[in-house]
Amino acid sequence: MTQANSSLLVVGSVAVDWVITPTAERKESVGGSATFFSMAASYFGSVRLVGIVGTDFPKQAVEDLRSRGVDMAGLEVVPDGLTFRWKGRYHANMNDRDTLETQLNVFETFDPKLPDAYRSSDLLFLANIQPDLQLRVLDQVERPRLVGLDTMNLWIGTARAKLLEVLKRVDVLMINEEEARQLTEEPNLVKAAAMIAELGPKSVVIKRGEYGAMLFHDGQIFAAPALPLANVIDPTGAGDSFAGGFMGYLGRVGEMTGEHLRSAMIYGSVLASYCVEGFSYDNIAALDHAKIDARYDAFSRLTQFERATLG
Amino acid sequence: MTQANSSLLVVGSVAVDWVITPTAERKESVGGSATFFSMAASYFGSVRLVGIVGTDFPKQAVEDLRSRGVDMAGLEVVPDGLTFRWKGRYHANMNDRDTLETQLNVFETFDPKLPDAYRSSDLLFLANIQPDLQLRVLDQVERPRLVGLDTMNLWIGTARAKLLEVLKRVDVLMINEEEARQLTEEPNLVKAAAMIAELGPKSVVIKRGEYGAMLFHDGQIFAAPALPLANVIDPTGAGDSFAGGFMGYLGRVGEMTGEHLRSAMIYGSVLASYCVEGFSYDNIAALDHAKIDARYDAFSRLTQFERATLG
Repeated sequence: MTQANSSLLVVGSVAVDWVITPTAERKESVGGSATFFSMAASYFGSVRLVGIVGTDFPKQAVEDLRSRGVDMAGLEVVPDGLTFRWKGRYHANMNDRDTLETQLNVFETFDPKLPDAYRSSDLLFLANIQPDLQLRVLDQVERPRLVGLDTMNLWIGTARAKLLEVLKRVDVLMINEEEARQLTEEPNLVKAAAMIAELGPKSVVIKRGEYGAMLFHDGQIFAAPALPLANVIDPTGAGDSFAGGFMGYLGRVGEMTGEHLRSAMIYGSVLASYCVEGFSYDNIAALDHAKIDARYDAFSRLTQFERATLG
Repeated sequence: MTQANSSLLVVGSVAVDWVITPTAERKESVGGSATFFSMAASYFGSVRLVGIVGTDFPKQAVEDLRSRGVDMAGLEVVPDGLTFRWKGRYHANMNDRDTLETQLNVFETFDPKLPDAYRSSDLLFLANIQPDLQLRVLDQVERPRLVGLDTMNLWIGTARAKLLEVLKRVDVLMINEEEARQLTEEPNLVKAAAMIAELGPKSVVIKRGEYGAMLFHDGQIFAAPALPLANVIDPTGAGDSFAGGFMGYLGRVGEMTGEHLRSAMIYGSVLASYCVEGFSYDNIAALDHAKIDARYDAFSRLTQFERATLG
């Protein structure tokens, strides 16, 4: 494979979580969309992070990301500030969860400022933050080759107009299935994806948690299952790790053909599957290319079937 | 492909449904697990049906099945009896549904009696009926090459001991994900499938509605997505059509290799996808081999991705 050596910028949350599952619990678990994204994408090429934390954010986490090659120059540390904190509890199925507490803290006044060197990034991922902030990031970059976007039910409900503005400037939207239905007010996902494509994004990725993800691109649909796992430890960050693997791979190959997009869906699924097998980013911080390739092959075996005909 | 010309016997319900969806409604809609199964399986080889109806059952439906080559000698018609009737309403997502009314009618006294010619069937599918009746069917057949089974939450809850007896004599269990969890009291599906394999079935198919189905066989997992469809008319019978395509294909090829099982999963998915695009069996009564093959190819395109490596 030829490598494009693209630069990939992510803007999103950096957080400290308190994660409770049916069998275990971790307080002070490092989280945040930009964190998981960067860690996952770091295996594919260079990554730049823009986010905000307080002085309570573990220095070890910054070190972990830096040692994976993530450029942390864009991480703003607010003196005497407290990091964004989320506390949640997963149900027995490890798919549904309840948010028990959210403290925005320094995230409330987040105004992403890109270091000059970041403005010409080849790819940009706008992780799930206020659409207004996403617009401000778009205004600071020269036109990247590829812009990816995540959003959530809250912004669809409360900041729809701004979100629609953002969508016009986006190439790939990653959204979960309930959000796709909410955004379009259309229960059928095939129709919903077509409606979203009319709003701007050339490609739409619909995430379905433990059921995998679907890509709608160029009139084609690609379905990537999730890898069935016997031991799911902590689903937090799976979607962001998916996005990191997906965008990372596209940056690495440097072009957005249908074939590369499908492989990107699988690399995203690989990173998500590794992510949920540990708390925080424990598991995806300890990968290498061989482990990633091995699991890519596992996805091939999971989905492969022979041609057959009755005719 | 060589054809095995196997005989496939199904024992299950034959029903008259009243189906309500968010946009349409059909009263006197012919349904029942054995009905959908037979119609779907009829494209793969010879099918024999055992079931029970009253004199209110539409003669046209018997004619429709017969004209697809289904042997209806095992359909018992109870003089002055009323056919099993089910009334249900689908939610906007077309996946969840509420049962509004169930009238067992002649089904309450169903005691399946196999015509002599059926006893030596090559394959047997025990559709979702009381485990006690499933046992009585098993006692009437010479050992078929392959026995498939469907069941439901009701029997898992109220007839577990009998169901466990049945499972010992079954090769393939088809069950939905909630039922797999209920049967094993294990929320993780990988573990649940392994536990079910200990109960008898060599292969376990876990159905996930609009998310597709998974096959656990010989230590391998195969994931078949559902085909994303823009127009779902009536999901009733999708699972039974899946089973008909699955068992029908295995009968046609005559052996249960991992490769054939994977193709059977796709043929099952093909028949299920066609089924939900019409009310009752309207759509699957009007297929041919070319249409089935075309949709099998659509599943290939839906899931195909290239090998790739980072290493």
